[in-house]
Amino acid sequence: MAHTGQAKTNPGRFFEDYAVGDVIHHAVPRTVGSGERALYHALYPARHALYSSDEFARGCGLPTAPLDDLAAFHVVFGKTVPDVSLNALANLGYGEGRWLKPVYAGDTLRSVSEVIGVKQNSNGKSGVVYVRTRGLNQRDETVMEYVRWVMVRKRDFDAPAPETVIPALNKVIPADQLVVPEGLDFSNYDFTLAGEPHRWGDYEVGETIDHVDGVTVEEAEHMMATRMWQNTAKVHFDTTARPDGTRLIYGGHVISMARTLSFNGLANAQMIVGLNGGAHANPCLSGMTIRAWSEVLDKAETAAPGVGAIRLRLVATRGGEPFQLKGEDGKYLPDVLLDLDYWALMPV
Amino acid sequence: MAHTGQAKTNPGRFFEDYAVGDVIHHAVPRTVGSGERALYHALYPARHALYSSDEFARGCGLPTAPLDDLAAFHVVFGKTVPDVSLNALANLGYGEGRWLKPVYAGDTLRSVSEVIGVKQNSNGKSGVVYVRTRGLNQRDETVMEYVRWVMVRKRDFDAPAPETVIPALNKVIPADQLVVPEGLDFSNYDFTLAGEPHRWGDYEVGETIDHVDGVTVEEAEHMMATRMWQNTAKVHFDTTARPDGTRLIYGGHVISMARTLSFNGLANAQMIVGLNGGAHANPCLSGMTIRAWSEVLDKAETAAPGVGAIRLRLVATRGGEPFQLKGEDGKYLPDVLLDLDYWALMPV
Amino acid sequence: MAHTGQAKTNPGRFFEDYAVGDVIHHAVPRTVGSGERALYHALYPARHALYSSDEFARGCGLPTAPLDDLAAFHVVFGKTVPDVSLNALANLGYGEGRWLKPVYAGDTLRSVSEVIGVKQNSNGKSGVVYVRTRGLNQRDETVMEYVRWVMVRKRDFDAPAPETVIPALNKVIPADQLVVPEGLDFSNYDFTLAGEPHRWGDYEVGETIDHVDGVTVEEAEHMMATRMWQNTAKVHFDTTARPDGTRLIYGGHVISMARTLSFNGLANAQMIVGLNGGAHANPCLSGMTIRAWSEVLDKAETAAPGVGAIRLRLVATRGGEPFQLKGEDGKYLPDVLLDLDYWALMPV
Repeated sequence: MAHTGQAKTNPGRFFEDYAVGDVIHHAVPRTVGSGERALYHALYPARHALYSSDEFARGCGLPTAPLDDLAAFHVVFGKTVPDVSLNALANLGYGEGRWLKPVYAGDTLRSVSEVIGVKQNSNGKSGVVYVRTRGLNQRDETVMEYVRWVMVRKRDFDAPAPETVIPALNKVIPADQLVVPEGLDFSNYDFTLAGEPHRWGDYEVGETIDHVDGVTVEEAEHMMATRMWQNTAKVHFDTTARPDGTRLIYGGHVISMARTLSFNGLANAQMIVGLNGGAHANPCLSGMTIRAWSEVLDKAETAAPGVGAIRLRLVATRGGEPFQLKGEDGKYLPDVLLDLDYWALMPV
Repeated sequence: MAHTGQAKTNPGRFFEDYAVGDVIHHAVPRTVGSGERALYHALYPARHALYSSDEFARGCGLPTAPLDDLAAFHVVFGKTVPDVSLNALANLGYGEGRWLKPVYAGDTLRSVSEVIGVKQNSNGKSGVVYVRTRGLNQRDETVMEYVRWVMVRKRDFDAPAPETVIPALNKVIPADQLVVPEGLDFSNYDFTLAGEPHRWGDYEVGETIDHVDGVTVEEAEHMMATRMWQNTAKVHFDTTARPDGTRLIYGGHVISMARTLSFNGLANAQMIVGLNGGAHANPCLSGMTIRAWSEVLDKAETAAPGVGAIRLRLVATRGGEPFQLKGEDGKYLPDVLLDLDYWALMPV
Repeated sequence: MAHTGQAKTNPGRFFEDYAVGDVIHHAVPRTVGSGERALYHALYPARHALYSSDEFARGCGLPTAPLDDLAAFHVVFGKTVPDVSLNALANLGYGEGRWLKPVYAGDTLRSVSEVIGVKQNSNGKSGVVYVRTRGLNQRDETVMEYVRWVMVRKRDFDAPAPETVIPALNKVIPADQLVVPEGLDFSNYDFTLAGEPHRWGDYEVGETIDHVDGVTVEEAEHMMATRMWQNTAKVHFDTTARPDGTRLIYGGHVISMARTLSFNGLANAQMIVGLNGGAHANPCLSGMTIRAWSEVLDKAETAAPGVGAIRLRLVATRGGEPFQLKGEDGKYLPDVLLDLDYWALMPV
């Protein structure tokens, strides 16, 4: 008798399918090129000069403009969705993210994850899974890595709980572990072409910046972005997948929108090299107007000529006043969509 | 006196403008590149590895990842619209479609059609026109060909009926007439990177597969797709072109959406090489959620190393239960959007 | 104390920030490639063969298909927005636009503007600023130039009025100042592949052409287009930026839509080489159906083999009858969106 139905489709993994030490080779490698670059510029108000202009990138010691760092992250992340978050109940956090090699047109990316922690929830119905994911190019070089933890359903509530392993993660990547791309040199940085005169030395820890601009988001745009990264999570595409008939916007869409909006005030925070942490505070839906503000959390020197590192909190909101993050109860305010903590490179 | 109005615009051809043996060289050749590839991945949940990764394609004996087979079809098809279907009352069917050469970035495509049949309808107001269309690249190699028949209005109802010619068409392309791309070799196929372990031998004739996922479609997306293929049919773009003020979604958009959704369960049905037939069962409009299911209709061996052929029925729906196609009256159920019969290549 | 708020964001320039002779080097150079080309074809019904096919372009003496002339214009224009029109009350006009070098994939564009006129308004609250903008490629060659004048708010109403300077501008670029791209040769022009038989000699001054087709426009599309050109004007993206909660569609989106719709009747008006003037007669909003008509205003010969110049009025409407432009009061009719006066090159 012939098979019928879902015997060959991917049901996703459940909590009991993860064991510490497991290595998952994620499917569907992807070659990126000038098409992805153009689409990134069409989907987000991306203006950082290093990614917009091959000439500007060459002036900074790179062979050509790389793919936007967050686009590289989305490609690497998207591949993990069918294996990591198809049955996820919640995306709990990110940490220890580092960009190790720029991605250039023609590079082919694939992703590999290692399970580094599991902890069953007290209700016995779900658990938290920690994975460290690496994105590799066609030369098997790691282009980026990050840790992510998600809450995943159990298939069988009676399955025994695994031994709890919670990985020790740096809350913040120490500056001396940030990797500056080989050859990067901001000695002859062109501030006029970059769009703002503010250099690393002009920012002080504690300073806050309202990025002013807003973008009202549309269904077609977030679905195109999410599909481009081959992220297949149903809730982003299918109005019948959620009880209220809305499509939840991929959190990475909010990250990229906020980061590109932050050009206005942080035009020289060119390259993202570290992701210390991030939380999607509230769901983002079509029709919302995304705004962003930043706070300077730290600064550090690097060994590369003219290159400083700046640690930034990037907050995306759906309105409300800038610089408001949490209420008296310690919870994110309802207008806050994203709270991201990252390291960027800037001309000193 | 100067001309005014529509003297220079294309009124489209009417039924009496087609005669068997006519050859139509369609306008506007198109060079395709990495931009079209990226857009295809942004507009559809395309994940077949051979089209996503240059490295994977090279591992299968091809020089680089080709343009998606259906994208090649849409480009070739789009060029015929101004000459074949501007005054069409209905798109009646496809048949004898074969992909003969992969299309690569930098290739320039044009289309040529030969009229191979005409049959006036008994009402005297319209008729059916059969054309065989070939897509050619810049080396004048045929990259694909297919037969299509459409119902076309007559300009002059009193014009005499032409002699009826109905071409003899294969209902199914015999497997030995399928063309496997030169060099294709699935001997070292990487099932992990491809995304599923199911090989040609794992599928049985009669087996059905529910592809599970759904995508709710948007106006901006289907218009971008249809324009990318330079398909100019008014009903897809202009809310004033149809009495109910809706835009009819190009049938090819539904084909590509269903095919890419079929990755989930048919990830290794990599290349499309034959189009046996197809019907657009019901109109697709923005806001509908497209789902897909497949049925294995046949299997055949090929002479290429490690390469098998599989004949699949691909059905797109707007809801309803999977595996339901027609009612007791023999007509397509209202939820069925597409019924497509094609040959694909798979690792054995 | 750390800075807070908008100390580092761009407030835009006000009327008193412009002085005749000032030169502004606009930020964020942009490398364009096959991604931008594909997106242009996805966002507009672009079918002019010279921009669609590398082979066709080579048949006309060019090395490959250039970026669409209007896309080049949008890139150059977009860069000026943060410096010229962030505080603009109205975009008053364009003139003396000339395309001087085709833009090819891989070229990097930047923009430089010179202030060539200022005139304070009698109300003392705003003034008109005239700038001549040049787009340059990575070899510092000017690829295009145009004059634009905008009405800009004053920051300080009590600031003294500058001396009035109104530049003398040609209402129409004399045909002998049009620049035909080096090598362009229409001697062996393929009218079949181009899509229409009508040559330069077939058009008479005074002739009008209804381009017939219409496109209903969507929010996602115009925002993607406008972002692709890195145009940051808030009113195009942010529903909270205008009192009525609508997003004003970038005038350049209407220009490109109308120009590409004009293929139907002007398929051989291949290259745009001059922009004599242009007015955005009424605002365009999502949901409107854009149509277009043209009027032949003039014709001229060129020194290039087989190449004639044709001066066209291109009118975009949101409905109404074609060929109606202004009412008895001399004002644009409410259905008119755009009135553009340009020179194009055509096979004689």
